[in-house]
Parts: sequence; structure tokens; C-alpha cells
Amino acid sequence: MDETSTQGKKTIRISLDAMGSDSAPRNEIEGALEALRSAKNRFEVVFIGPKDDIENALSEYDTSGMNYSVVNATQVIGMKDSPVSALREKKDSSISVGLNLHKEKKTDAFVSAGNTGAVVSASTLVLGRLKRVSRPTIGAFFPSERGVTLLLDAGAVTDCKPHFLHEFAIMGGIYAQLMFHRDNPKIGLLNIGEEEGKGDELTKATYKLLEQSNLNFIGNIEGRDVLKGKADVVVCDGFTGNVVLKFAESVIGVLKSKFTLYAERGLREKLWMGMMRGTLRKILKEFDYQEYGGVPLLGVKGITIIGHGGSTPKAIKNMILKADEMIQQRMNERIESAMEAMQTVPTSATSSTI
Amino acid sequence: MDETSTQGKKTIRISLDAMGSDSAPRNEIEGALEALRSAKNRFEVVFIGPKDDIENALSEYDTSGMNYSVVNATQVIGMKDSPVSALREKKDSSISVGLNLHKEKKTDAFVSAGNTGAVVSASTLVLGRLKRVSRPTIGAFFPSERGVTLLLDAGAVTDCKPHFLHEFAIMGGIYAQLMFHRDNPKIGLLNIGEEEGKGDELTKATYKLLEQSNLNFIGNIEGRDVLKGKADVVVCDGFTGNVVLKFAESVIGVLKSKFTLYAERGLREKLWMGMMRGTLRKILKEFDYQEYGGVPLLGVKGITIIGHGGSTPKAIKNMILKADEMIQQRMNERIESAMEAMQTVPTSATSSTI
Repeated sequence: MDETSTQGKKTIRISLDAMGSDSAPRNEIEGALEALRSAKNRFEVVFIGPKDDIENALSEYDTSGMNYSVVNATQVIGMKDSPVSALREKKDSSISVGLNLHKEKKTDAFVSAGNTGAVVSASTLVLGRLKRVSRPTIGAFFPSERGVTLLLDAGAVTDCKPHFLHEFAIMGGIYAQLMFHRDNPKIGLLNIGEEEGKGDELTKATYKLLEQSNLNFIGNIEGRDVLKGKADVVVCDGFTGNVVLKFAESVIGVLKSKFTLYAERGLREKLWMGMMRGTLRKILKEFDYQEYGGVPLLGVKGITIIGHGGSTPKAIKNMILKADEMIQQRMNERIESAMEAMQTVPTSATSSTI
Repeated sequence: MDETSTQGKKTIRISLDAMGSDSAPRNEIEGALEALRSAKNRFEVVFIGPKDDIENALSEYDTSGMNYSVVNATQVIGMKDSPVSALREKKDSSISVGLNLHKEKKTDAFVSAGNTGAVVSASTLVLGRLKRVSRPTIGAFFPSERGVTLLLDAGAVTDCKPHFLHEFAIMGGIYAQLMFHRDNPKIGLLNIGEEEGKGDELTKATYKLLEQSNLNFIGNIEGRDVLKGKADVVVCDGFTGNVVLKFAESVIGVLKSKFTLYAERGLREKLWMGMMRGTLRKILKEFDYQEYGGVPLLGVKGITIIGHGGSTPKAIKNMILKADEMIQQRMNERIESAMEAMQTVPTSATSSTI
């Protein structure tokens, strides 16, 4: 944890909740070491968790020349813990310690595969919000025919106002530009019909805001358009986004069990399934959300990436590499400028009662 | 269209919008004839649409001994028409004529694969609501590991109040009991977490109502639980339900095109795909919502079943048979009794501001 590297240039430090995933700290350690190897130690990984346990676990790996450190945190917030009370009661949890280090600028990002609610709440409370951001938002990735689609909000904000969705669109647009390298990303509003005037009170009012904005707003898109990649960024309230995300995640599991069931029917089916396994795996993999690693929490004064409890070492590696890229891209500076430049909204559109 | 059959017993008449589907009236005719054949002419199908066109089309089929009639309606409401203005301007549309016949008790059900919005609006306006029903609701079917799950609302009511969802639960429960033959069907509330207290304002307030009801309420279920069949009936607002339904419908299309793409990669892949086609088709079929035929509109004073524009003859046949079953089961009488018996809700729970 020196302030500078030997070249005098500030070292990038990414703190990793070592106790987040269901297979912690093993998957975290393996993922971090893979990330360091692939990035040639360009950054430092700071493991946060019970120091002795982590060092014991690390001793089983070849870590010579690896750019890492360990910061002690004695408590762990479980997946079943209530975020609010856990944060209040477990002041020395890996999530609290990691985010406080980040707030004090001792690290440049925080990555966790732990309790999503706790990471979202703690990031918002500890790091604070970026200027002009009403609510931080969780993005989620959907595979699509044109690459990846970013949907937000995926569960951070359940009851939304139209201007929240406008802000999500701005932040999502910057993310798609910097991380997907899409110029002038297409923003779609998730709705129950394509025509203007469709939807509930929230989407009708949001449509007007987005239409008047300087975003590349392509209008309403429907549930069926998400996987088609009609938009680079899909905005919706966090309730709808979370339901769709979890539904989508379940589809692969259900299909896999159906295929297994059919393979058990007879010898012929078993043989074919055996031959097809590789192809099937490739196809289903594109729909396997684990492959994308974690999802970003946008709008906080810092970089927070949140992963599944079931994150594999590969997912952890991808989360760390994505955090590094977000730092390199100066994501938050770009979001703040975009929010600053956000077209002033006519009062008629903001006077909505919802 | 005689009032009684030769046995003196009242003949059941199911009116069919002959101009609903994208392949109308061909798919409607073929589906209706199949339904009549399989039900051994137990009911009469009343085709609604341009009489000459329908009779011309019918003349291409062997209809001897088939129990059908044709009622003239000169106009057609297209899929792209705005429901409200189309209903106002096209008084002689197959949808309006069909529903007016049903209202006048000249038919016992109305089946259409036409413009969903128009059928929902017209059914509500023309037939009226059942006693104590605030909003009629569209159900949708999801395949699940335990059979079929009924989700409602799937798009009829976008902005919901807690007691609307309570009513959807009652109506859905009766449907599951009579049509899926499930005793004491399990009712789940679609939410973004399992624990009580999770969710947006609507679901938090709805949770309390359902908990106090005499329904078999199993609590919150998440997006990932829908296909697992955790609940027989899943209730949610029509915005969320519609987005999830359309997302689900798109998954099969995306997977099919992925498989086709892989099959084109090489001879080996092509051969395997050829061999697997039958099995694949069987698996995907379970997820193909077309197979279920149409969906019921519950809460109106009549039986309305609505199908996809792309309905196949088989889907039309299933819609007609389902209408017949709903009539036999006296669905609406059962719904009215259940609404009547609906436990009185304490004022504290109804004083919600949303």
C-alpha cells in the first residue's frame, strides 16, 4: 500500500472484498491472481477480509512477484443479512472497510461478490453521490444480437421518478460509450408498446423527458427487443429491471435441466447430447450472465462493481479488469460532465405528480 | 343460430373473430373446424366477419355436418390501429359485432386473435365488469417445472393499486383451480426479493393485503421463480407482467436463430443439428407460448379469450376449446362468489396513498 510505484507514477489500487462470493476467499484469490497475471501487475489488488485467513489461503498459490496486499476486516456480511442492520452492526465488515478505504482515496475501486443490497447501500452512504445524481443505479448486461446491451436500473431504485430514469439514461450512455465503445449510443425506454403515449404514468412522463434531451433516444422498446439489441442502453425502473434480469438468468438453468432430462430418455438421445455438448455449451454460454462478471453501480463517488454470490474465478477476474478499465476511462469525470451538460428540463415536464 | 339444439338443451355458442390473426380467415377456419371435430360438434362456432369472404373461404373445406354459422361484420380493426379510436370509428368491426352478440347473450364466449388492446377495451366497455371487480385482467401462461403457471396481470392494467392485485389473485386462483385442476392454488407475489418488506410501494402494500386474505398466499417470488413453478398463480402489475411476458416470448426466437447460426458453421455441426432437430423442437416447444393458444381476460361479464396475431390453426382450436371449458366450469359465477367471499380488508391496509 505505498502511495507511489517505483516509477513515481501513482499506482492504481483495486480493493476486493475477499469474503464476498459463496466460495470465498478461494474464488476471489484465484480471480485476482488471474487478473494480475493478465494485466501484468499494472495495478495492485487489495484483499479485504480476515487477514490470517486470507494469508493462509494465499500461501497455497504461487504469488511471487504478484502486486497485492491484504487489509484486515474481521466481520463478514452474509447473503441473507438485512443490508441496513448488517451495515449498522458490522462496522468491521469487509464491505464497510473496503468502501471506507476507497472513500479515503487509498484505493481507486471496490469490487465485491457479496450481498448486493449491502454493497449498494454502503457505497451510496460511504462514498456519496456524484454531483446532480439523484439515485445511483445498478446496470445489468444482456447478450444481444448486436453484442451487449446495458439495462438499468436493475434493482437499486424500486420506486422511480421520471428524472431518475433520465439520469440513468445519461449514465448508461456514458458507460456504453466508454466501455462498449459505441459512438452516440442508442437509448431505449423499456415499455409495453412502441408508440409514444404507451405505458404507465412513469414511462409516459419519462418519454417526454428523454425526447427533449440531447441523448440519442430511439423511443420505447418492448420486452422482446432487449435480446435483439435494438438499443445499446435500456432504461427502466429498478423493480421491472430486477424482475426481468432474474427471469432471464433463470432461463438458462431451466433449459439446461430440460436438455439433461431429454438426454436421459434413451441411448440415442444420450449419444446425440454427448456429441452436441460442446456446441450447446457455446450457445448457452452467451446467455450465461456469469460470463460478464459483475455489474457497475453508477452514480456514486467512486467505482463499485458488484458480482453474483456464485461468481467463478473468471467472473472475479473480469470484475477487477472492468474496474481497472473504468478507472482508466475516468468514468466518473465523464458522468459528471454529462450530468452538468444535461439539457435543462422545461418545468411542464418536471411538474409531474409522480 | 337457433336458440336450442334438437334435444331442447341450450346450445353453447362460441363466437370467433374470423378476421383476427395475421392469416385470417384461413387459420380461424381451420382452427374452428378442428375444434368442432375434436369436440364432436358439442358447441356451435359463430364466425364473425365479412360474410361473403368467410363463406368463400369456408367453401374450400369439407364442412358437412359441422356446427357453425356466420354473422356479418364489414370492418376489421388492424393490429396497428389505436384501440380507442378504432372502436369509435369502426362500429361494424368483427370485434365490436362479436362482443355485442355476446353481451346480448346470443353467444357464450368471444375468441379473437386480433388487436389485443382493442379486444380488452371493447370487452370491458361492451360486456362490463363482474360485480366487485375493479379492473379486468389478462392472464398469461408460462411453462414451468410443475406444469403451467398463470401470471396476471400481463398488460391490461399498467398503473395498479394494491387491491387490484388482490383481485387478480382471487380471479387467478379460481382459474387455476378450475382449468389447471389445482386444489388450493399457491399464489405468489412477483417481487425483487423473497423477504417480507422487499419491493416497491405497490408490492409492500399488496403483500399485507394478500397475507390477510383467505388465499393460499406463499409470499414473494422473484423473476427466477416463475419458470420453476414455485407458485400456480403469479400476480404483478400489468407493466411488469407485460415486459416479462414479451421478454420470455423473445427468448425462443433468439435461441432458435443461435442454433441455426451454429448449424451453418460446418458439416459436422450441420449433421448434428439435423439429428438433434426433433429433440430440440420438443424442448423449445414447451417454451413456445403459441402452443398454449390464447389467454383469458378475467373479470368481464362474459368469456373473452385473446390470441397472438400469429396464431396457428392449432392455437385457434385451443382457444375455442378453452372457451368451451370456461363456460362448462361456470368460471364467472365462481369468480363472483369468490369476490363476494373476499375477506373484508382492514381500513389500515386500504388507506394506502398509492
